[in-house]
Amino acid sequence: MRAVVIHAPKDLRIDTLPDVPPGDGEVKVRIGAGGICGSDLHYYHHGGFGTVRIRQPMTLGHEISGTIDEVGAGVSHLRPGMRVAVNPSRPCFECKYCHQGMHNQCLDMHFFGSAMRFPHVQGAFAESVTVDARQAVPVPDSLTLGEAAMAEPLSVCLHAAKQAGPLFGKRVLVTGCGPIGALAVLVARNAGAAELVATDVASQPLATARRLGATRAINPVEEPEALKAYAADKGTFDVLFEASGNEAALRGALDLVRPGGTVVQIGVGGDMKLPMNVIVAKEINLRGTFRFHAEFELAVEMMGKGLIDVKPVISDSIPFADAVKAFELASDRNRAMKVQLVF
Amino acid sequence: MRAVVIHAPKDLRIDTLPDVPPGDGEVKVRIGAGGICGSDLHYYHHGGFGTVRIRQPMTLGHEISGTIDEVGAGVSHLRPGMRVAVNPSRPCFECKYCHQGMHNQCLDMHFFGSAMRFPHVQGAFAESVTVDARQAVPVPDSLTLGEAAMAEPLSVCLHAAKQAGPLFGKRVLVTGCGPIGALAVLVARNAGAAELVATDVASQPLATARRLGATRAINPVEEPEALKAYAADKGTFDVLFEASGNEAALRGALDLVRPGGTVVQIGVGGDMKLPMNVIVAKEINLRGTFRFHAEFELAVEMMGKGLIDVKPVISDSIPFADAVKAFELASDRNRAMKVQLVF
Amino acid sequence: MRAVVIHAPKDLRIDTLPDVPPGDGEVKVRIGAGGICGSDLHYYHHGGFGTVRIRQPMTLGHEISGTIDEVGAGVSHLRPGMRVAVNPSRPCFECKYCHQGMHNQCLDMHFFGSAMRFPHVQGAFAESVTVDARQAVPVPDSLTLGEAAMAEPLSVCLHAAKQAGPLFGKRVLVTGCGPIGALAVLVARNAGAAELVATDVASQPLATARRLGATRAINPVEEPEALKAYAADKGTFDVLFEASGNEAALRGALDLVRPGGTVVQIGVGGDMKLPMNVIVAKEINLRGTFRFHAEFELAVEMMGKGLIDVKPVISDSIPFADAVKAFELASDRNRAMKVQLVF
Amino acid sequence: MRAVVIHAPKDLRIDTLPDVPPGDGEVKVRIGAGGICGSDLHYYHHGGFGTVRIRQPMTLGHEISGTIDEVGAGVSHLRPGMRVAVNPSRPCFECKYCHQGMHNQCLDMHFFGSAMRFPHVQGAFAESVTVDARQAVPVPDSLTLGEAAMAEPLSVCLHAAKQAGPLFGKRVLVTGCGPIGALAVLVARNAGAAELVATDVASQPLATARRLGATRAINPVEEPEALKAYAADKGTFDVLFEASGNEAALRGALDLVRPGGTVVQIGVGGDMKLPMNVIVAKEINLRGTFRFHAEFELAVEMMGKGLIDVKPVISDSIPFADAVKAFELASDRNRAMKVQLVF
Repeated sequence: MRAVVIHAPKDLRIDTLPDVPPGDGEVKVRIGAGGICGSDLHYYHHGGFGTVRIRQPMTLGHEISGTIDEVGAGVSHLRPGMRVAVNPSRPCFECKYCHQGMHNQCLDMHFFGSAMRFPHVQGAFAESVTVDARQAVPVPDSLTLGEAAMAEPLSVCLHAAKQAGPLFGKRVLVTGCGPIGALAVLVARNAGAAELVATDVASQPLATARRLGATRAINPVEEPEALKAYAADKGTFDVLFEASGNEAALRGALDLVRPGGTVVQIGVGGDMKLPMNVIVAKEINLRGTFRFHAEFELAVEMMGKGLIDVKPVISDSIPFADAVKAFELASDRNRAMKVQLVF
Repeated sequence: MRAVVIHAPKDLRIDTLPDVPPGDGEVKVRIGAGGICGSDLHYYHHGGFGTVRIRQPMTLGHEISGTIDEVGAGVSHLRPGMRVAVNPSRPCFECKYCHQGMHNQCLDMHFFGSAMRFPHVQGAFAESVTVDARQAVPVPDSLTLGEAAMAEPLSVCLHAAKQAGPLFGKRVLVTGCGPIGALAVLVARNAGAAELVATDVASQPLATARRLGATRAINPVEEPEALKAYAADKGTFDVLFEASGNEAALRGALDLVRPGGTVVQIGVGGDMKLPMNVIVAKEINLRGTFRFHAEFELAVEMMGKGLIDVKPVISDSIPFADAVKAFELASDRNRAMKVQLVF
Repeated sequence: MRAVVIHAPKDLRIDTLPDVPPGDGEVKVRIGAGGICGSDLHYYHHGGFGTVRIRQPMTLGHEISGTIDEVGAGVSHLRPGMRVAVNPSRPCFECKYCHQGMHNQCLDMHFFGSAMRFPHVQGAFAESVTVDARQAVPVPDSLTLGEAAMAEPLSVCLHAAKQAGPLFGKRVLVTGCGPIGALAVLVARNAGAAELVATDVASQPLATARRLGATRAINPVEEPEALKAYAADKGTFDVLFEASGNEAALRGALDLVRPGGTVVQIGVGGDMKLPMNVIVAKEINLRGTFRFHAEFELAVEMMGKGLIDVKPVISDSIPFADAVKAFELASDRNRAMKVQLVF
Repeated sequence: MRAVVIHAPKDLRIDTLPDVPPGDGEVKVRIGAGGICGSDLHYYHHGGFGTVRIRQPMTLGHEISGTIDEVGAGVSHLRPGMRVAVNPSRPCFECKYCHQGMHNQCLDMHFFGSAMRFPHVQGAFAESVTVDARQAVPVPDSLTLGEAAMAEPLSVCLHAAKQAGPLFGKRVLVTGCGPIGALAVLVARNAGAAELVATDVASQPLATARRLGATRAINPVEEPEALKAYAADKGTFDVLFEASGNEAALRGALDLVRPGGTVVQIGVGGDMKLPMNVIVAKEINLRGTFRFHAEFELAVEMMGKGLIDVKPVISDSIPFADAVKAFELASDRNRAMKVQLVF
């Protein structure tokens, strides 16, 4: 079984690894599609982010879908041949946060392709992965495996939307229109935002944002005045989804958020210097959002019912054997939006 | 009529100013007590804070109470001789935020003793001030004028508590135990916090915090390990009231806040460098809180009914003619908590 | 100027009334369209509802739009010829609820065509009405006056949606698919409900509900088993919009709401016998919703931007001179959805 | 081992039953105190309530505390001799509601002394009970076993308070001052209600409510005008805890709740005829509250820290051998508040 393994920054290889037969309550999934995420790119370019660093070879990938190959004992609701989206998140279901329904905060989380723990949790850019049956969510025929692999980043945005409170009839700003920002636009559109402005410094992502339902897409470098108008009367937007992870983007956007408005920080940055006087004086509500739990099944359901269409976000599908080429392409936000590996 | 006027940093004078007779719907109040606030100290020491600077002589003071001296036309519910707490905040009641019940965000706010607008809004450390009748809230006989003058800072903390959501049965941390932090302790105690920890780098404020109901008061410099224990399992506190305005205090406290917890930033700082990865990964909810509106009457009511006792927070009462001495004393947090001028 | 006036149950006349020139801050609107609401029908058939009864002749109508005819002094943002939706609600902006941003609970409300106060507030099924400039909301060219007149019932449903909390990704049930239920379906669809079931005992409203985006439309009399399936595991729906005002509908639906779910009662009934043990044991959150305030402008904006399309709800447009015929038609839910008078 | 067993209405016996040794993860508790709850009284007088009926002999009791007698394998944090409050609630931790942190809505709940399932879940008015170690919560020396046994009804009220949202500075009404209503008064007092009115038709409970911190206690039969004053301006109270289970009490109280206010129905009634027009027009938020989960440990903690003092609620302590006498006494609300059996 071949897999896409990071050994060191820029040292991404196609390695052959042993197949894992499914144990009790498990299924083996033949992977069909795997989307490259920003964190995969961080491992590829820098060997990690913040204090998280690869200390052993690690298969990358956590945005995946495939076809069930083999079913372990005790699994009755899944059968070989079923197409599934695979949830990369496996909480313990036993710690205090799991007991409070906050599984994304699990104290003993296993999340595919993450070097946060050691030994690292191996990822799923592989010809097959073996997972808990709970992680495999059947997808309807109406969805391609590429769309199914979008369940993971879409879940991130569904969870972010939950942090934001009601979006219906609200004025929403999305800063940063990479894949996550683009999905945030899509979610805000589907949740009924009355006004939906997207910003990015590149024109390609802005075009996608427009296609996904942004009422306006602005390049703040080219049109600084366009944004400033939203700062009138202490600010316009009820909700800001900050998806760039960029300090300047967040600082600038705080002036555009109305008093009492909510900022959901999705993009992970490291330290950021923030104008606390603005946050205090406007009583802004700045919240982090981290991964997802119940939203994964919801993502599959909403795509499956045709309520959310992620196809415009998938820009490229590349054979996994060309992983390096795919990773380089995914790193160029002027050429690519979501790049998926095909297995 | 004499008043305490700031002319330049460290240039605080007792000036004689004209009395203002009450117009329609106004009352003239003979001031009895006036508490010195952190912003008053900023004007005294630095001539302002952030971009706000005094550009003309300005009477300081906005934590005040007194006795009604004269009643203007059309005011029927107030009479000379009535003792009142004076709300320093006069919103326009006409702008969009006032119409939404967010009067503290009024686009045309007049707030006593503030150089935010020009001409500045003159303050109320004066033998008499003339105010809208709506600003004068009668106090019961059970309260001294000193307590009545605490309605303002108490309102700030009542509003901060509102930003925090329910406090009953919650684990609460207060960082910084100056007058505002001390009142936050008092409020959290009265709101039924199950655990209530206060921190400060000085021993005097910690002693006050203990007296006001903190279950534990910690000096993080002297007992760094004591605080670290609260960081276990991703953090302990449901709510943090950050009342120090100090970047290090906030950064340190973020590690002690549980996933999904709420941080209410009361103390105004300027820019602060924050660990966004912590805020994102723990999905912390960081909110600003700014002044108050309806909370002013509530503060008077709760003190008047004996539900909240602010007396331990008032450390010194000094004749207003000795204002400079009083301001110097108020600047020394090891000697003084709330210093009030007596008129 | 002619108007549609109710004199007694079933005694609806076209009367000639004096024109009212606009005073300061007012505008006179030549009415173009007026939708017949359930309360209009109550006045027509029964002379009122509950304890509210007509005690003097009253012009009916409060779902209206038209063209500005004349502008009073001091109104600068409106001009003759502008097309407007007219907000039938005029709160006092002075009482405690107005000051709290709860204008729909105003203690001195004037609402068109309502016999709640005496003298009654005259309605707006008239060739012209004179209103506060604040009540006239300009509509873009993309909307017909018929659509503009839907701003009022749509506002009711936008406000109901606000009571329900986030609808995105939620399971929603709407009981009763008359005009208000139909608009609730439309709103839930636009707010991103994952599952959206509508019920009614008539087939015509169910067909409309399907067209408006219900994922399923069920006649509980014809398909009782279909609904029962949603009662599994203590219930399915996160949110119920009860728009029938019918006790049996609400009782039946309570079994289908999940623990902790929210029931928004829109349809006004009188007394209803409710199973409190179900409400208690499932911790159901039953809330009333009453009229609207800020939602009126939002309704115009969302229709104007093409985000919400109310056209399928308008079934009939009838000249106001045939008001009796129109009221009879509007009373037959198998033949008509929203019937509008044309002026 | 002797236990208090209901065989039929009014047929309450002291039976001898076998001791149950603790299995893996279990502990055996020698019961010290057991409070008689309203549901115990329903079984005693009527053999059940609503559709719930005893169909086999059932040990009553679920408000209990005691001393650990024996510890099963795998239990390390508990030792014989430790005094514990016993949580009568044992959710499955596996169903969808448990996974969402809503353990009180568990689809496979075992709750002591309840005939909701068959075979019934036997209760804990017994010389010893064997429970999951998770159900045994150590109590500090500062608490008597009588107080520890109050953890259960206090938990009910802590959970009810959670349904109500913030209580600090709010106007709160409690209708019905039996043990649950009395504890609701105590909780609202400790949560910082600004105004706290209690009503009951008997004078004894009103006296207790006063002692527990009600700012006013009113007998609506004797002083109907006193309550009516709270109906001014559409109503006064932000929160109503309805603890009587009485339709007339709830109906009357709805007039006293302010627009947008919250009604938490604690007392279980059967069907109630409610004025839906009032609920709709005032947009009242009526919520049920059912049992508790995490609140049990919180109840022990808050009593243990001296933050909540339940002693005034315990009116009588009677040897369990006199159970019939105790049940009769507990049925007379003019003579008794909380009656506890002593083992």
